[in-house]
Amino acid sequence: MDAEQFRRAGYQAIDRICDYHSTLRNRPVTSQVEPGYLRKALPPSAPTEGEDIQVIADDYQKYIMPGLTHWQHPSFYAYFPTSSTFEGILAELYASSTSNPGFNWSASPACTELEAVVMDWTAQLLGLDRSFYNISEVGGGIIQTSASDSALVATVAARSRYIREHPHVAIENLVLYISTQTHSLGMKAGLVLGLKVRTLQVTAQDDFALRGDTLKAALEEDLSAGLHPFILIGTVGTTSSGAVDRLDEIGEIAKNYPFLWLHVDAAWAGVAYACPEYREAYHLPAINNYVDSFCTNFHKWGLVHFDGSCLWVRHRRHLIDALDITPEFLRSKQGDAGTFLFLWSCCFNVDGVCIGTAIDYRNWHLGLGRRFRSLKFWFALRARGVNGFQKYITDCIKLNNRFAQRIYESDLFAVVTKPSLSMTVFRIAPKSLSNLETLELNALNRAFYARLAARNDIAFTQTDLNGVFCVRMVVGAEKTVESDIDYALALIKEEAMILVGNWARMRG
Amino acid sequence: MDAEQFRRAGYQAIDRICDYHSTLRNRPVTSQVEPGYLRKALPPSAPTEGEDIQVIADDYQKYIMPGLTHWQHPSFYAYFPTSSTFEGILAELYASSTSNPGFNWSASPACTELEAVVMDWTAQLLGLDRSFYNISEVGGGIIQTSASDSALVATVAARSRYIREHPHVAIENLVLYISTQTHSLGMKAGLVLGLKVRTLQVTAQDDFALRGDTLKAALEEDLSAGLHPFILIGTVGTTSSGAVDRLDEIGEIAKNYPFLWLHVDAAWAGVAYACPEYREAYHLPAINNYVDSFCTNFHKWGLVHFDGSCLWVRHRRHLIDALDITPEFLRSKQGDAGTFLFLWSCCFNVDGVCIGTAIDYRNWHLGLGRRFRSLKFWFALRARGVNGFQKYITDCIKLNNRFAQRIYESDLFAVVTKPSLSMTVFRIAPKSLSNLETLELNALNRAFYARLAARNDIAFTQTDLNGVFCVRMVVGAEKTVESDIDYALALIKEEAMILVGNWARMRG
Repeated sequence: MDAEQFRRAGYQAIDRICDYHSTLRNRPVTSQVEPGYLRKALPPSAPTEGEDIQVIADDYQKYIMPGLTHWQHPSFYAYFPTSSTFEGILAELYASSTSNPGFNWSASPACTELEAVVMDWTAQLLGLDRSFYNISEVGGGIIQTSASDSALVATVAARSRYIREHPHVAIENLVLYISTQTHSLGMKAGLVLGLKVRTLQVTAQDDFALRGDTLKAALEEDLSAGLHPFILIGTVGTTSSGAVDRLDEIGEIAKNYPFLWLHVDAAWAGVAYACPEYREAYHLPAINNYVDSFCTNFHKWGLVHFDGSCLWVRHRRHLIDALDITPEFLRSKQGDAGTFLFLWSCCFNVDGVCIGTAIDYRNWHLGLGRRFRSLKFWFALRARGVNGFQKYITDCIKLNNRFAQRIYESDLFAVVTKPSLSMTVFRIAPKSLSNLETLELNALNRAFYARLAARNDIAFTQTDLNGVFCVRMVVGAEKTVESDIDYALALIKEEAMILVGNWARMRG
Repeated sequence: MDAEQFRRAGYQAIDRICDYHSTLRNRPVTSQVEPGYLRKALPPSAPTEGEDIQVIADDYQKYIMPGLTHWQHPSFYAYFPTSSTFEGILAELYASSTSNPGFNWSASPACTELEAVVMDWTAQLLGLDRSFYNISEVGGGIIQTSASDSALVATVAARSRYIREHPHVAIENLVLYISTQTHSLGMKAGLVLGLKVRTLQVTAQDDFALRGDTLKAALEEDLSAGLHPFILIGTVGTTSSGAVDRLDEIGEIAKNYPFLWLHVDAAWAGVAYACPEYREAYHLPAINNYVDSFCTNFHKWGLVHFDGSCLWVRHRRHLIDALDITPEFLRSKQGDAGTFLFLWSCCFNVDGVCIGTAIDYRNWHLGLGRRFRSLKFWFALRARGVNGFQKYITDCIKLNNRFAQRIYESDLFAVVTKPSLSMTVFRIAPKSLSNLETLELNALNRAFYARLAARNDIAFTQTDLNGVFCVRMVVGAEKTVESDIDYALALIKEEAMILVGNWARMRG
């Protein structure tokens, strides 16, 4: 394929993407294919001879498009959003056209440098303390793949710090703290690293937020049992209900246990700190005062498509101590270990002298190579500006408030927990069936969710909050407008009415 | 930015990418910026108001482009290649326009399904045993970010298997085996997981290949010392010299130690198995007979840009046992742990009944969300076909053979190890200075490399092989042709002549 063929195919791709986004509202939200549909449609091997790009591009429309769930659809309210912008798509296009693994400064200086810059832009956008900025040269920020990676990196750094300070402690006696509402990333970090995980309890009365007293009791119990809790993963905006751990209380407790690393996962909710009015209520001051590391995913609700998980640490040396394979005492040995190639992060002049140093991001994450992810941040943040970014966030919250308000007012539905930013967790709780037992009401709600899940014109997710089965909706697609919310309200009402009618008939 | 603005900016991006690739040969290979150049050029914060996309796109040319090292440049011979195709760029463009985190089948069925299909296409392309195919439903393949991630996943699976089979063994007594030539991924897996790493010795006489006897001696020594070696990371095509561990011998030894997981990292060289003539010499039969997991990075030398690291396992259950946060005995508990959302990998019908199951790739890797990486594989493999893929590989090898042959014939240079596929490791070894001591010759070669590194019209990498400083060249850019190789030869000769002349004068 030469440049002219690429030009034609590229123009066509751009045109088709325009068409896609212009017609997205009229498409089904969720894919209706059956498992195995693509295996049946495609040949079992790559072709022997090359095929024309037009055939391939058409097959993308024919075979792939029907198998996609459209996360940017205005009626997609499932999981968390994956916001996306035209500007970000353009940035990705440029980045892929000069692809490189950017593992150190020399590998492609712009990759390291732009990441260092945009991570300070985003830190400032969110109101993070300057100690988290890259220009502090003490803390700093890096873009990881996902919040799971960010939490895993934080846990590795915390474990490494703990073991350095307590060299005789067996890994078997370390404990990672999460709450029952922590995203699967907590349990997975434990599995990957072979660590004990203790799941701290939260209550509906506390809106599923982890309290300081609960942490304190667990610490005292474990320490007196000879165990070594070394990290707590707290959450701002839990997956199930958008709950916010009481970081103010947690931070005060943790002050007395300075060996405990505090990591805050705000994968979805963290970008709302761009709007100063949410900082206090969502405990940004506690993050700035107490935590060791903080993560939010701009690829969820930050106008940057997947992947773009931002991780900030208070002390970069904890990352480097944990992840640099060439600490001082190993440096010469490593030179023999086939890794000599990757030691330098310098720019050399003609005499082979290093003329400056730069962040060596390979020592801030798990792998070596890394994609040029900062470019889409740069494009999107510049194109929208701080004002545009804030408007997007507040528009989503307003739309969710509209939804939640109608749920509050409804005779059919109830809000299960206090709506959080752009998330509402609700369920059927018909006034006409107010005498239902918990199990019956759960069964009714499962049936209700099954009806919603069977539709392809809207997408929600189910969840379970301490035994209460609920439906969960999150606003995040930039195309969602008030009439979409009203459509969603009409649709859930219609489904609920049918279900409640059937239920009443079945029960005679 | 609306669709029409995107269309204009998109066409322009396509045009600029065409220009870039058409003029790539005339550009400097390596960036000439100084550390910190971008921090100085950019404002310290994101703008308050949004900016025009044309300004941003122009700034990309002005500020980012000069900071890029051009890995697809015909004179880029450093590190390993990051091959790239126009077809792959198009696929990435489509993928980013419908961005989703594809963590399970339902999240976007096509993402899971296409990955399962292309991983079987590539397995077949490389001649892997059918037990590694996804359709075997026993083994299977997945695309990871990098070879480091692949090795880390394999190590986690191996540790998990070992601990299940030996539940009373302390993590502190586990040992991960690598050789002195293993890529940094081995040491990093040890660091991340907090494991002991034993570095097995190799010799220049063995062309830096790990031998079976060395493994056997280490196993016997460690086992009698009460240690528990549980995984060996072998290599096909080491970073420093393209060495190939003796997997035939290693496999035979490992048969007697069935608890030892064999992982083979063939990050760069593995794609050469697409050409049947290299399978025997590079030990594919041993991979098919003995190993538990195998990795090769199509983003290195496989016509797919970064990231696309292919990992195959013989038994997928070892991945799932290690990485599924919801094993059977935890399932109900996990339902309460905020992870209920992500349990299902089914397609539901209107009655909420699962109508089929699919691979749940979230349990085959470290994180949760994943990019739609298979699309670029599908585009590139179809566009080139098996024949086109093989031609690319053999063209690179022919070009390297041309280079190596001239080095062999030269009075100025010597080949340090047997050239491997598209890699030659060489050094200055002038016949006129044949009485130099090792240290002097190393110093001469360091000076030689410094001269090369100071140039911006070509890129090599340095390495050190058991105390011998060398220069390393790898052919991989698709634009490289014979005249580029001849240019490289002329250039190194010129630099060497100047250096040797200076050296002779300095020594009087």
